[in-house]
Amino acid sequence: MIAARATAFAPASVGNIGVGFDLLGHTLAGLGDHAVVTRVDAPVVRIEAIEGDVDGVALLPLDAAANTAGRALMELRERHGITHGFSLRLRKGIPLGSGLGGSAASCVAALVAANALLDQPLTRAQLYPLALVGEAVASGSLHGDNVAPMLFGGVVLATATQAIPLSAPDLYCAAVHPHFVLETRRARAALGEPYALSQFVRQSEHLALFLTGLARGDRTLIAQGLRDVLVEPRRAPLIPGFAQVQAAALDHGALGASISGAGPTVFGWFDTQAQAHEAALAMQAAFAQVDLPSDMHVSPVNGPRAELVEG
Amino acid sequence: MIAARATAFAPASVGNIGVGFDLLGHTLAGLGDHAVVTRVDAPVVRIEAIEGDVDGVALLPLDAAANTAGRALMELRERHGITHGFSLRLRKGIPLGSGLGGSAASCVAALVAANALLDQPLTRAQLYPLALVGEAVASGSLHGDNVAPMLFGGVVLATATQAIPLSAPDLYCAAVHPHFVLETRRARAALGEPYALSQFVRQSEHLALFLTGLARGDRTLIAQGLRDVLVEPRRAPLIPGFAQVQAAALDHGALGASISGAGPTVFGWFDTQAQAHEAALAMQAAFAQVDLPSDMHVSPVNGPRAELVEG
Repeated sequence: MIAARATAFAPASVGNIGVGFDLLGHTLAGLGDHAVVTRVDAPVVRIEAIEGDVDGVALLPLDAAANTAGRALMELRERHGITHGFSLRLRKGIPLGSGLGGSAASCVAALVAANALLDQPLTRAQLYPLALVGEAVASGSLHGDNVAPMLFGGVVLATATQAIPLSAPDLYCAAVHPHFVLETRRARAALGEPYALSQFVRQSEHLALFLTGLARGDRTLIAQGLRDVLVEPRRAPLIPGFAQVQAAALDHGALGASISGAGPTVFGWFDTQAQAHEAALAMQAAFAQVDLPSDMHVSPVNGPRAELVEG
Repeated sequence: MIAARATAFAPASVGNIGVGFDLLGHTLAGLGDHAVVTRVDAPVVRIEAIEGDVDGVALLPLDAAANTAGRALMELRERHGITHGFSLRLRKGIPLGSGLGGSAASCVAALVAANALLDQPLTRAQLYPLALVGEAVASGSLHGDNVAPMLFGGVVLATATQAIPLSAPDLYCAAVHPHFVLETRRARAALGEPYALSQFVRQSEHLALFLTGLARGDRTLIAQGLRDVLVEPRRAPLIPGFAQVQAAALDHGALGASISGAGPTVFGWFDTQAQAHEAALAMQAAFAQVDLPSDMHVSPVNGPRAELVEG
């Protein structure tokens, strides 16, 4: 018998991982969004409520078509000929506009919960294109660097048509989120001016080193590659104290440190959990120097995927 | 006892491999340049002669500082405190201006031969920065996508500071060289106009798929990645018949096909040697349609490295 209601949790994520703009991401353990989905007879998708103790929740759209989670469930119904509908409650745990993939997490949690209510559940790979369409409501473009790691766990290479989980050594991520909102749209606008081929070549070199390092479990190559010379220079000025926060991470042994997603969260990769924890405290202190309170998250780089949970 | 004279052969190469501009290259078996180096007491580098039955050899500079091979040997002397000198003869086998790495091959062959005459020979990794400096005489910039595979063999990721050999499945390359000269400088000038971030993201996606495919020996990923959407569209108009030649390669089963180095040689990667051979004939026929005679080369993608040979 098919359940009438399911709850899923999707973790936060670090989009781009500095060097893989719109292409690479990994999940973070701990922080995340919940979706409670109920199967209803009416052939519609309804959002009953969006809750959670993060700022701005009241401003999120309850119109399903304008919400990443609602839009994804509409796409699920349309593409797969689902005759019944869904009613949806979201419980936000990821701060809005933090660069930690909040809009993607709601979308993926809703898909994973709704999938459990289908007569014939889909694979994660089948959910991926639906998540891309949902996520596009927030960002305006199809990019899977947040939804792909949430669906598959760990570090994922996300293209427009497929999500490819990548092996990675047992490293740890420190992500420090300063308490101000950087709108994705503003962060994207900073990237509009054209680029020189030489910048592209250097960034590609870093991407190639990073991917080769991941494939070989070679931390030296990962560290050589984990440097964003293309996007970070344009976005860093939007984040007060960025240079000092990045320096704090590197001073505490980061293999590399950059902006998570569209920011303002700053992340670093570290060899050990203890190192990541120490670095996170130093990164918080650097944000405090520019009067920004912050919260910190330490997680294995090989973070969890979205899963069903007890309601 | 140290020999007084050594001869080395360096193979031709496919620079860029379409999707790794200035970063990726692989060697081709068969075609290549020879360097005969003699150890001399005078603390200088002299070029005695440049020979070979390729067009334009008489125009190549005999001034050591203006020649990729001469310049590399000068750099070898300076960086490593070599007190004796070298006298150099080059025998060109790679057509000039073909996009098959001719200037790089002379440079690498000279280094490998000279290295055998040192009291304390260097490693290939130590020769790499010297080859970069030599190659820069021809191209004006430090990029190792030709010299790196020549020094190490097979497919290599070449950065400004290191050459990283990459594993690749047993694929075959067909390279078809139409008989007209495309000057590297002109081919580079076509790339000057700035680029949009979206082009960069798509090319990065292909690079990531290609590298992941190489690391896993996954031909499907390699085929998905082997598409140059950044450089090829700007250079293709400089090569008469390019679209038809590329189509001929793809019609004959190429995983991908693009421009070798700065062109005008067009290459494709194939599953089998027989396929590569059939495709090469079709590619030649397509060049013949625009009245361009051509020569063809079929080689394992995992081609040889430069080696000492009998004088």
